[in-house]
Amino acid sequence: MTITVVGSVAFDAVKTPFGERARMLGGAATYFALAASFFDRVQVVGRVGADFGEEELQVLAMRGTDVDDVERVADGKSFFWAGEYGWDLNSRETLDTQLGVFADFQPHLSPASRACDVLFLANIQPELQLGVLEQCGETKFVAMDSMNFWIDSARDALVEVIRRVDGVILNDAELRQLTARPSLIAAAREVLAMGPSVVVAKQGEYGAALLTEDQFFALPAYPLETVVDPTGAGDTFAGAFAGCIARHIDRPVTEPVLRQAMAYGTAMASFCVEEFGTERVERLGAGEVDARVEELQRITQFEHVPVPLEAS
Amino acid sequence: MTITVVGSVAFDAVKTPFGERARMLGGAATYFALAASFFDRVQVVGRVGADFGEEELQVLAMRGTDVDDVERVADGKSFFWAGEYGWDLNSRETLDTQLGVFADFQPHLSPASRACDVLFLANIQPELQLGVLEQCGETKFVAMDSMNFWIDSARDALVEVIRRVDGVILNDAELRQLTARPSLIAAAREVLAMGPSVVVAKQGEYGAALLTEDQFFALPAYPLETVVDPTGAGDTFAGAFAGCIARHIDRPVTEPVLRQAMAYGTAMASFCVEEFGTERVERLGAGEVDARVEELQRITQFEHVPVPLEAS
Repeated sequence: MTITVVGSVAFDAVKTPFGERARMLGGAATYFALAASFFDRVQVVGRVGADFGEEELQVLAMRGTDVDDVERVADGKSFFWAGEYGWDLNSRETLDTQLGVFADFQPHLSPASRACDVLFLANIQPELQLGVLEQCGETKFVAMDSMNFWIDSARDALVEVIRRVDGVILNDAELRQLTARPSLIAAAREVLAMGPSVVVAKQGEYGAALLTEDQFFALPAYPLETVVDPTGAGDTFAGAFAGCIARHIDRPVTEPVLRQAMAYGTAMASFCVEEFGTERVERLGAGEVDARVEELQRITQFEHVPVPLEAS
Repeated sequence: MTITVVGSVAFDAVKTPFGERARMLGGAATYFALAASFFDRVQVVGRVGADFGEEELQVLAMRGTDVDDVERVADGKSFFWAGEYGWDLNSRETLDTQLGVFADFQPHLSPASRACDVLFLANIQPELQLGVLEQCGETKFVAMDSMNFWIDSARDALVEVIRRVDGVILNDAELRQLTARPSLIAAAREVLAMGPSVVVAKQGEYGAALLTEDQFFALPAYPLETVVDPTGAGDTFAGAFAGCIARHIDRPVTEPVLRQAMAYGTAMASFCVEEFGTERVERLGAGEVDARVEELQRITQFEHVPVPLEAS
């Protein structure tokens, strides 16, 4: 099975209370691909500038990821984002955004990328996401991300994308903004009613929730003493989530598979935030991931021996 | 086994996006007692004014709760709080606080209240909490709550209370403020190091986490389409949590008991927020609580069939 991701491949400058990096490999498609590549063969569709060197390309191509659809523009610069996180890492301020060659990104998928089993539309302009959907006819599971900017500025196109995908992966503020519903459950149900069979509500340090037509599942974040840099956590989650689904795509995507995908997404994201950018995931071992999935199971289980309660 | 709670018994005026109540029964000890009374015999220690009528006293005394230590001051008024919640119920503004007779509350426990097995020090001045601890010598499990105001203004006394209790139940912002640590896990560990064996981090709509010396457990909130009024949710949680512990107090308080207490606390709190004030819990049936505890188990379980991952 193969997974295609369409999205940004970029450089980031990040400052957190634990340090900073003036220039590190980033971008949604990068984080997604690194995580998904643990599970299956990944193809990245993106656009970078001449500043994107062999070293970065090698990281992107780890574990056999196909980078043939990463277009390199000789006279341009890669997407660059600079941001600073607050004291408890729950807020961040964008200091600089330079779209560079990403401003004219028009995803063009090779036959190999089109023939994927699982497709992830990372956070890009909804019109471009629609264009990608037109190119991929036979995909078995399509998931997507977006952001507040597109909910505000390109709502109709975004809703059209949502109608046509299987899974929506947004954070809870985005789900609330999209539906104008204060209740996360009600917001997710409204998104499900648009067409998707799966909604994942990312909740940052609190974990994530999964909603399908008749089920609800929630998983806390893996408990860490120190989070160094939250950048890329959501896309890393999505990469492992989609990767786990790809590995089971020969069967219908059942609730147990979705829940396991949530656990792998959560475990993988917990490694991402332990160090800056892709540093930790680049040298992550498969056994480490499984150990955290097991630990997630331990920290969420409880016995229920009913306590006889008093009637009123 | 018996449970004693010391704290506010009050009237609240509450406005939420779903409606308002100009005057409803409230106060931490009230919410705690209603929840705990499902599990065991409860004694309430508090102070109210002449405005506290027979009707309110009967609600407080539900399921056999002992209100003999609720002092009624003939020429005074009960503690009154007025607040308004924001759109998504995650923020609230205090519009009015009138301490009334609660300003001179000096908890004096009768022999019956002193002889409790489980004691809950609801959010009051830490010096008063210390005074209660002096009166209760043989209590088997003591838990406490507090708030940002006391962390700021009475830190030394608050830390002294923390040193002397078994369980600390605070929300995560309070744990961070108390320890000046941005990481919730690090903050909780620092509180454990002060003396308690249990820290519960309340996380509002995201549920709650439990930390002991060598274990971590997290449980999401029970998923509700509509939350009408969050007032009292934390104290309702604490009441069921402490109640569940009281029912098992003949044995050491083990991790499985603590986890089950988390589940009962979470289930009970979910009923509290479905309607204004104590309205829903007043007519709650024991079977309804157990059904939600079972449902909490279903929505947090996942199978882990390891997916063979690619090495790098």
